[in-house]
Amino acid sequence: MTTDLVAAVDIGGTKIAGALVDADGVLLHRVQRPTPAREPAEGVMRALTGVLTALTEHAAWERVVAVGIGSAGPVDARLGTVSPVNIPGWRDFPLVDGVRGTVGGLPVTLVGDGAAIAAGEHWRGAARDRANALCMVVSTGVGGGLILDGRLRPGPTGNAGHIGHISVDFNGDLCPCGGRGCVERIASGTNIARYALAAGWRPEPEDGDATAAGVARAAARGNPVAVEAFERSAHALAAGIAATATLVELETVVVGGGVSLSGEVLFGPLRRALGAYATLPFVRSIEVVPAQLGADAGLVGAAAACWSDAATFLAHGAAGN
Amino acid sequence: MTTDLVAAVDIGGTKIAGALVDADGVLLHRVQRPTPAREPAEGVMRALTGVLTALTEHAAWERVVAVGIGSAGPVDARLGTVSPVNIPGWRDFPLVDGVRGTVGGLPVTLVGDGAAIAAGEHWRGAARDRANALCMVVSTGVGGGLILDGRLRPGPTGNAGHIGHISVDFNGDLCPCGGRGCVERIASGTNIARYALAAGWRPEPEDGDATAAGVARAAARGNPVAVEAFERSAHALAAGIAATATLVELETVVVGGGVSLSGEVLFGPLRRALGAYATLPFVRSIEVVPAQLGADAGLVGAAAACWSDAATFLAHGAAGN
Repeated sequence: MTTDLVAAVDIGGTKIAGALVDADGVLLHRVQRPTPAREPAEGVMRALTGVLTALTEHAAWERVVAVGIGSAGPVDARLGTVSPVNIPGWRDFPLVDGVRGTVGGLPVTLVGDGAAIAAGEHWRGAARDRANALCMVVSTGVGGGLILDGRLRPGPTGNAGHIGHISVDFNGDLCPCGGRGCVERIASGTNIARYALAAGWRPEPEDGDATAAGVARAAARGNPVAVEAFERSAHALAAGIAATATLVELETVVVGGGVSLSGEVLFGPLRRALGAYATLPFVRSIEVVPAQLGADAGLVGAAAACWSDAATFLAHGAAGN
Repeated sequence: MTTDLVAAVDIGGTKIAGALVDADGVLLHRVQRPTPAREPAEGVMRALTGVLTALTEHAAWERVVAVGIGSAGPVDARLGTVSPVNIPGWRDFPLVDGVRGTVGGLPVTLVGDGAAIAAGEHWRGAARDRANALCMVVSTGVGGGLILDGRLRPGPTGNAGHIGHISVDFNGDLCPCGGRGCVERIASGTNIARYALAAGWRPEPEDGDATAAGVARAAARGNPVAVEAFERSAHALAAGIAATATLVELETVVVGGGVSLSGEVLFGPLRRALGAYATLPFVRSIEVVPAQLGADAGLVGAAAACWSDAATFLAHGAAGN
């Protein structure tokens, strides 16, 4: 019997997706359920079990050698537990044990969603062939993961690369995480919209879109408040990216997520602002590129993290590398 | 013939030190010259060659298998060049080639001084037995290096861990590096003294010490301006440390350098401030401890970086690990 697939699961605050993934990163069978994020722990676990069961019932399940999970964080990969901010019913929830109940004796790899996206973009996306990369998502929140020395480095607990909650304004506004001046508190889509609205920007009457996407369209048309809202976000992102590059040395920064879809409205100011913070010789030449994998990055990455895990790595070669 | 030693060199803005170091980290023979930091490139190289020649003339030189260099940065370990901020005559200076002229065919490992200190504290100091640590120096400047997954991670160019030049105040004061609000610009000994003097603190007439050491003594006696100067430094350091921990996951932060000798005047506010920035579950339990190796950390670490380099690692075991 061929054993050439992994099962990948991507757990977020709005959806739980699963797929069987081959050693080339192709999704063979994809299933998805809404996350019942406000339900007690058991209700959320039932939704996940539904996704897993749909995978186990597929004819190709017998070819599966391992299970990879990318989950909204924080996670604790050592303990196999998760405490996703947006799923309040799960606090120190024993996710890996819960998954084992459905998938039997297969090895299970757990990483945070930022690490999963980094693994995905490194395997099959914009960070391919890069030895040192930060892959980040700028959407309602800001997250990320790190590729170091050619491999995913999730850190001991699976949360490394969490650029959204580093401070770039140490006397700045309190962040819901408890810190001050976090990148996410300034640069996320939510905060771009909040800043623009507070500064007097109003959405177009025809669409009423008061999100960062609405601000982005206004900025593209030259609305000065909207432009300023993206400039401010870009400066906070640039300071955070430069900090990361100065700490670990990066070649590439991959930026995905909803706000990145505004294209040059974000990437233009971001690349310019980077020049103001990435000043030391070894960080001056970082490239900033858009993500390539879109919404399936987490699934592809959960598979990559799993393929690159030691047990399967030896048998399957450098798929996750 | 036993080949059980490495030659270590520590190049700073004020002194060039060298030693023969055994596989236990013991310095067998130590030599030192002042750095002629204002001389042209050749003059500085002559001083270094003097140190190296003194080592080669020692009877134990024939036991040396490799040479490790920790240099003031930035360095470029790929090219073997250095451009130390405080040695203006050396810009893209081919240091490794210059050293090879004296030491012959021995392998030469180059890392930045922050990485060297981290390697030293990990091998024989306060980060021993820690898998993930930031080792930093707070003195006239602020520097550091990273231990990740049980090994020194100098990064491709040898400069990783350079916490002094990450921004914690993205709209803050310009730093001499060209960035804004860098940790060093706020937290270094130089800037502690500058801030205290600007806020009205004056050194004691009996010693006239207007450096951070003078501010530390005043803070220990309860002088409110001096206490505030250390609080501000501690907050910037804490924001930078929390950022590093959030990006790479750390167990331990080792703090050395002149300012760390003020003891609880720095460590007290630093540990308290860390609680305000290290808020995510996976960073809350970082320990902050004083460095143990003192002025020889760079030499011990240059030896460690060299021992842990691939070629010698296999032959000599986990000395640098």
